[in-house]
Amino acid sequence: MICKSALLSKYKYCAPARDLCKNYSVIASVLEKANVGEVTEVKGWVRNIRIQKEHIFADVNDGSCAKKLQIIIPKSLKTESLTYGSSVHITGKLSESPRGQLELVADDVKVIGDCVVSNGYPFNPRTPHPPEYTRQYLHLRSRTNYISAVLRIRSALTKHIHDYFMSKHYININTPILTSNDCEGAGEVFKIQPDNEATVKAMMQEGRDKDSVYFGSKTFLTVSGQLHLEAACRSLGNVYTLGPTFRAENSRSRLHLSEFYMLEAELAFCSTLKQLQTEIEDFIKYIFIEIQNTNEDDLYLLEKNSKIPLWVDKPFVTLTFDEAKTILEKKGIADTEEGINKEQELALVEHCGGIPVFVVRWPKDMKSFYMKECQDDTSKVDALDLLTPITGEVVGGSLREDNYDKLLSKLPSDRLNWYLELRKFGNIPTGGFGLGLERLLQVMCGVNNIKDTLPFPRWPHNCDM
Amino acid sequence: MICKSALLSKYKYCAPARDLCKNYSVIASVLEKANVGEVTEVKGWVRNIRIQKEHIFADVNDGSCAKKLQIIIPKSLKTESLTYGSSVHITGKLSESPRGQLELVADDVKVIGDCVVSNGYPFNPRTPHPPEYTRQYLHLRSRTNYISAVLRIRSALTKHIHDYFMSKHYININTPILTSNDCEGAGEVFKIQPDNEATVKAMMQEGRDKDSVYFGSKTFLTVSGQLHLEAACRSLGNVYTLGPTFRAENSRSRLHLSEFYMLEAELAFCSTLKQLQTEIEDFIKYIFIEIQNTNEDDLYLLEKNSKIPLWVDKPFVTLTFDEAKTILEKKGIADTEEGINKEQELALVEHCGGIPVFVVRWPKDMKSFYMKECQDDTSKVDALDLLTPITGEVVGGSLREDNYDKLLSKLPSDRLNWYLELRKFGNIPTGGFGLGLERLLQVMCGVNNIKDTLPFPRWPHNCDM
Repeated sequence: MICKSALLSKYKYCAPARDLCKNYSVIASVLEKANVGEVTEVKGWVRNIRIQKEHIFADVNDGSCAKKLQIIIPKSLKTESLTYGSSVHITGKLSESPRGQLELVADDVKVIGDCVVSNGYPFNPRTPHPPEYTRQYLHLRSRTNYISAVLRIRSALTKHIHDYFMSKHYININTPILTSNDCEGAGEVFKIQPDNEATVKAMMQEGRDKDSVYFGSKTFLTVSGQLHLEAACRSLGNVYTLGPTFRAENSRSRLHLSEFYMLEAELAFCSTLKQLQTEIEDFIKYIFIEIQNTNEDDLYLLEKNSKIPLWVDKPFVTLTFDEAKTILEKKGIADTEEGINKEQELALVEHCGGIPVFVVRWPKDMKSFYMKECQDDTSKVDALDLLTPITGEVVGGSLREDNYDKLLSKLPSDRLNWYLELRKFGNIPTGGFGLGLERLLQVMCGVNNIKDTLPFPRWPHNCDM
Repeated sequence: MICKSALLSKYKYCAPARDLCKNYSVIASVLEKANVGEVTEVKGWVRNIRIQKEHIFADVNDGSCAKKLQIIIPKSLKTESLTYGSSVHITGKLSESPRGQLELVADDVKVIGDCVVSNGYPFNPRTPHPPEYTRQYLHLRSRTNYISAVLRIRSALTKHIHDYFMSKHYININTPILTSNDCEGAGEVFKIQPDNEATVKAMMQEGRDKDSVYFGSKTFLTVSGQLHLEAACRSLGNVYTLGPTFRAENSRSRLHLSEFYMLEAELAFCSTLKQLQTEIEDFIKYIFIEIQNTNEDDLYLLEKNSKIPLWVDKPFVTLTFDEAKTILEKKGIADTEEGINKEQELALVEHCGGIPVFVVRWPKDMKSFYMKECQDDTSKVDALDLLTPITGEVVGGSLREDNYDKLLSKLPSDRLNWYLELRKFGNIPTGGFGLGLERLLQVMCGVNNIKDTLPFPRWPHNCDM
């Protein structure tokens, strides 16, 4: 890709040939080029080993793709420490197996690092390890098929997200992690302080407590970059951010983390919920198709039926909040709760044939201060949730209140005067959404527990490493 | 780009024509296509306005690019509230000015949001505002040419970074923000706690203090994702991360922030410092050239000589630490300090003709525990700093100690036993680097103060918004 873009460019940097730099090929590239007959060096880890009469067969993987390269090793080569889990450097010639698969016939095998399972290595070959088990070994678990496939998909997802938004002229904005605002006002936030007592002492001023000594005001970890995006949106047009957000909830469900990633986008000049829904639907369909194109083998490793979800060429369903409640009542699962709980979310998706469902026009008192009232019903706001199979809600969004006086009357704190002032000068209508990246990965990869969608999950009582 | 990639793909999603969705074009796209004669709608902000005899000339920008579109407005149209800073919706026909520039001859002008400068708007047209002034208005300053140009370059930089590494089969890993490790052991970290007293009370267990109540151990904001990358590198091969890191230092220099972005990469099977240097040098040259290709107009707005730095087709210089010290002594600016300070860094770059300089082979006791000893001199480690004009150090890196026993003897804490254990099973040599994104932007954009390279800077006593 670099070469191609360089050719199209006015300026071009040609990296000089560097013999020192790389004396091996990544397996993804070996498999892609499939140059039978070529002398090739690979480095990676032995994922499987079978000893037969005249040869040893080793499946080697280097993490660059889901597939393993089969290595045929004549028994004449010294291979005592070549075991499952060891790291190896193999030189040989590429050939085609009787079944038509690419394999490497080794003429040199070096073991770089051995692996003695009985010394405490927690994994065994050809053994499925349940996620609860591998989660005890966060530093090693990316060596399992399952986690490595999810992490490659997560990596590709990041790229597709940036490609999608930048090709549509959105500007990527790094909204801050540290903030003196608590966007949602829900209170379940982490606060921060310098750990070093000497720093605290040196910065202490009269009338300040430890919570505000460093920044001059109490400072939290962000729960959303939305308010900051709205500032950028009023000068740069469409903007988005993809980064970590935090909740200090004491929740250990299969759908919650203390640290998780959100994709948030804010659309300039957006004045109808329909515009917002269209953008969300297009984006989600694009992402599912691109992952299928780039990571088919990883999806296969996850034992997912290697097909795009059936809903990808169907229009998403839209229900108003009132319609959704009526459906739930008819099903006999509407309760006295005001909102829509997880069980109800999943029931609504099932009711709609497993197709994602937008629930729109929510009662005002259930939603945040910044959401815009519906023009024809001031008891409702132009908000949406998008519900999918497996996780229920994956996206939340709304039009934003753009009327200065209405916003002033609902503003929860003076600290948000800057947010109000955005409406004072060259104001525009905007709308936006936040998508939980890990929940999207759960839907995409069929992962039941959100803790298995990111490399180092954090949840109550668990912040190892 | 989406269409093109879709054509090459097995699966393709065609978004249906959606009349509701978009009734205007972004200015970047209007200028690119330059369809003279076409009826066009744009939305944006008035950045300049000149009233002449028969026409009003308004320069409109929507943030999608550095350039403004000149709008020719016949005085017959109602335009009372059309002022500097107002947001507008213009319909008209594209034409070519006598000077050959694309302009839009308006037949309809709607002011969406007015802007009365005397009501407290801090900016004026055609007035350069010094950075110290605009920094007081973080929520509005992306409306200035300078900050908007830097933010567009920052956004493009993010894309180029992902493109570069993914095209080379690196896997993007989201290393955690919350961690129970303090990687560098420097002590200048932020610690976190739940803010909600009820949560703290509910989670309190015997023998725990408030600092460890939520996660079961004291928890910090990350200073580096390196140790986590090393875990991923031993299964996925080459890996990288791009995300926020934190320092609780009481430093207000033009080169320090409390929250800043680091690009960190870890190279699998990397056993020489030369390999690492090659990768860093290739990457930096690639990035500078790509930004020149995609953001030339933004660089021009920053009044940068619209040229790639002169060093981009020259090899970077390499000095050992001892050689660097000798040069500084000859210049008479070596002092009793052990390391190399900022003034000395910049002097070394100047000494080398303004070309970036790698300083390699550092005294072991100046560097971190995880760095690998030089094979031929155990008093030195295979570490590097890359120094550039403007900022001095922008990259730090090293080979990692891969010998289990040597690492054990230097391990600063039992909490890092997982890190040690990475060397026990299928171990490989690795090396990696960390690059300060904001410092790179300073070099790239010629920005003197690091606080102007990101949208919402945080530094001691400053965490507004």
